Amino acid sequence: MADKKLVKEITARDEDFAQWYTDIVKKAELMDYASIKGFMVIKPAGYAIWENIQHELDRRFKATGVENVYMPLLIPESLLKKEAEHVEGFAPEVAWVTKGGLEELQEPLCIRPTSETLFCDFYSKDIHSYRDLPRVYNQWCSVLRWEKETRPFLRSREFLWQEGHTAHATAEEAEERTIQMLNVYADFCEEVLAIPVVKGRKTDKEKFAGAVATYTIESLMHDGKALQSGTSHNFGDGFARAYDVSFTDKDNQLKYCHQTSWGVTTRLIGALIMVHGDDNGLVLPPRIAPTQVTVIPVAAHKPGVTEKAEEIYRTLSERFRTKLDLTDKSPGFKFAECEMRGVPVRVEIGPRDLEAGNAVLVRRDTREKITVSLDAIAEEVGALLEKIQREMLERARVHLNNHTYTVKNYEEFADTIEHRPGFIRAMWCGDRACEDKIKEDFSATARCIPFEQETVAETCVCCGKPAKKLVYWGRAY
Amino acid sequence: MADKKLVKEITARDEDFAQWYTDIVKKAELMDYASIKGFMVIKPAGYAIWENIQHELDRRFKATGVENVYMPLLIPESLLKKEAEHVEGFAPEVAWVTKGGLEELQEPLCIRPTSETLFCDFYSKDIHSYRDLPRVYNQWCSVLRWEKETRPFLRSREFLWQEGHTAHATAEEAEERTIQMLNVYADFCEEVLAIPVVKGRKTDKEKFAGAVATYTIESLMHDGKALQSGTSHNFGDGFARAYDVSFTDKDNQLKYCHQTSWGVTTRLIGALIMVHGDDNGLVLPPRIAPTQVTVIPVAAHKPGVTEKAEEIYRTLSERFRTKLDLTDKSPGFKFAECEMRGVPVRVEIGPRDLEAGNAVLVRRDTREKITVSLDAIAEEVGALLEKIQREMLERARVHLNNHTYTVKNYEEFADTIEHRPGFIRAMWCGDRACEDKIKEDFSATARCIPFEQETVAETCVCCGKPAKKLVYWGRAY
Repeated sequence: MADKKLVKEITARDEDFAQWYTDIVKKAELMDYASIKGFMVIKPAGYAIWENIQHELDRRFKATGVENVYMPLLIPESLLKKEAEHVEGFAPEVAWVTKGGLEELQEPLCIRPTSETLFCDFYSKDIHSYRDLPRVYNQWCSVLRWEKETRPFLRSREFLWQEGHTAHATAEEAEERTIQMLNVYADFCEEVLAIPVVKGRKTDKEKFAGAVATYTIESLMHDGKALQSGTSHNFGDGFARAYDVSFTDKDNQLKYCHQTSWGVTTRLIGALIMVHGDDNGLVLPPRIAPTQVTVIPVAAHKPGVTEKAEEIYRTLSERFRTKLDLTDKSPGFKFAECEMRGVPVRVEIGPRDLEAGNAVLVRRDTREKITVSLDAIAEEVGALLEKIQREMLERARVHLNNHTYTVKNYEEFADTIEHRPGFIRAMWCGDRACEDKIKEDFSATARCIPFEQETVAETCVCCGKPAKKLVYWGRAY
Repeated sequence: MADKKLVKEITARDEDFAQWYTDIVKKAELMDYASIKGFMVIKPAGYAIWENIQHELDRRFKATGVENVYMPLLIPESLLKKEAEHVEGFAPEVAWVTKGGLEELQEPLCIRPTSETLFCDFYSKDIHSYRDLPRVYNQWCSVLRWEKETRPFLRSREFLWQEGHTAHATAEEAEERTIQMLNVYADFCEEVLAIPVVKGRKTDKEKFAGAVATYTIESLMHDGKALQSGTSHNFGDGFARAYDVSFTDKDNQLKYCHQTSWGVTTRLIGALIMVHGDDNGLVLPPRIAPTQVTVIPVAAHKPGVTEKAEEIYRTLSERFRTKLDLTDKSPGFKFAECEMRGVPVRVEIGPRDLEAGNAVLVRRDTREKITVSLDAIAEEVGALLEKIQREMLERARVHLNNHTYTVKNYEEFADTIEHRPGFIRAMWCGDRACEDKIKEDFSATARCIPFEQETVAETCVCCGKPAKKLVYWGRAY
């Protein structure tokens, strides 16, 4: 049995979800609070997850022709202000540099909250002809947004992300790229993070400051709250007009570019915790887990046990991200530590296993124990990791489906949002006023207008006027 | 022959080295100037080199037990000020954030110029027992230093780097780690960047603000000026005392940790340019080149040529980072472009080659042409890339040796520094006054006290008093 020492300090998930989340980020050693409010130290166990996210996404990006670049950290105030909607959206939450070295700056510089303005400034000088298009650039960096309420990974004043910024000759190509990147995110979330998502478009109220259209992937946490997990924006030629990003087309006409941007952040680590975690700690899908297997000897002092554990470690580490725990902690403590950190499979090997030519594999997700022959251990572990990956996605999908409710009128909406946390599928007339009322009455928002439309009622769930669109509603992080 | 259009716009290297350098960074599309003075946009061709540097170094770091983390971008003024020497060294060149969102901050926050203070703050809370040691953390990030004079990659107000920060139980272990990381840098520079280095210790005048000892790798550029290419610092327990980084040792005594830090930056891209580049552009060693081979069809419209070029591309891209250039530019223009970007090998394939079952390999470094059989092209290219890597290092080593001068007195020093740019090996008494005089008279500095000591004279090259150490002197970037 796993040692209770580590475990008992975690609040039970169904008792206090918020406290359980905070306990996990600390006890699994993912992050720590920095001395400035809202900033965090991402510790090795957390950063290793982010490195795997980066590695997997970057590979997928490059396969679609993305090139990485690096833009400056700082934006001059005058540059930020060129696109009216954009500056209105971001100005209240940026940090300002007013002094460089010993001198007061002539113009304040803000720390990037996002880099549309910098990419536009660069593209306006760098793009001349249709031959220069498309430009499909991305950067991995940190950004700052001076948020009032913060939570580790989910909402912090500084976070890590990637931001792609593209420029195209036509509106069609820009729209195609916007959707293409949304699909890259959705596939990544499902295939690698084992998190199913709902793909759709944001309402005008919820879209990005300066975008014509924002597309989103929305996932559902264990507590029934939604998490916006990635967004992809089509800017049309709005930014291009504000920043003069133009090119001479094949027909010799000067035209404005059509632009997009798209990003995911370290909040995906928060999603992993809240979708898969349980009362024993983190549960990581094998494809993203920094350590996929930990080998733990039991009664390590008995003849041959440590040697066999080392041999198993050598065999497994050729194919999997493997660790061997030979510290002097008790086996029970090691088991609990493995569980807390979400290692998908642990291998236990003791004197009796050794004698029988076996080892015991323990699944993190179901805590099932499987005795396997030492001769076939690499194949068994490989097959088990694949099975865990598959079943974690399936379970998350069942949870998503079981917590998605279709309602037809305001009474049903009210009853559902209060008693059955999850996504609410309901029709909408298209008016901002109804979104505002739902926000006011229930602290819920339109998460997205899903790509997969269906008519579940003829009238708007809020005002009763003729319905235009099916919308996913919910309370969100 | 390579097209002259691209080439003619570059200043000749031996005519005006500084202008040649600036021409290359622009024409090879490595970077562009941002709208704020001293900041840069790192373009795809430049960033891809940095990604390869990161990949190679990160792998070597992790093999020595390094774990990656992420610390906050901002440092509270009070935290920066805890270590006296350190703040004195950095305070004049940091950027200050004084406003967050719509509010004036109660305490100014500086953008990290380096993160010793943040790591110390974290370690002071995170380290309790000898069991928590050693801590061997690293981060990849950008830092800001408000420099007055800036040059692309070599000295900019923002640059990318990695900074390792470690904490140890003993002074011996800290010293060992400091030297270990210097050796990782030196091996990386020689094996991957084909840049030979001189390893040594900085004088007290030249060491890092707050360090007990700073070790450095110094390389020599084509123009005979030195470039500090990587540094590794031993802090002793100075920072630990200032920030209270302590632990309970095995003997139950409370002790201060011994700490180190070490870093390399995007200035390594500047080193690559200035060590290997020539009048036709960049010359990249195969191991770091984002594109190792470019396949270019000649008379691409002739039957079979394009198809054969595609076939060669498919074969080579299985083993090397390969590009196929099927654009409608002229072959001569493509050749020049390849040369400008420093691609180690280009493959030319035309109708006559096709008929003979051959292709032509052209080395970027020597511009030598080698006709090879199509049947063995992958092996030939593989062997050629290895040969280029080896010979580039050898040539750089010959250049370093040919430009390293041993002198015995001040007259020889004066004559050498004025007429023979390079490293000057000369004895030193150990007094700061002699360093100051040499700086004053010749704008030269002590680059390092090399690990490989030798007595080339009995007296100090400057004051004539008894000599203590052999020093490498030089003018530096």
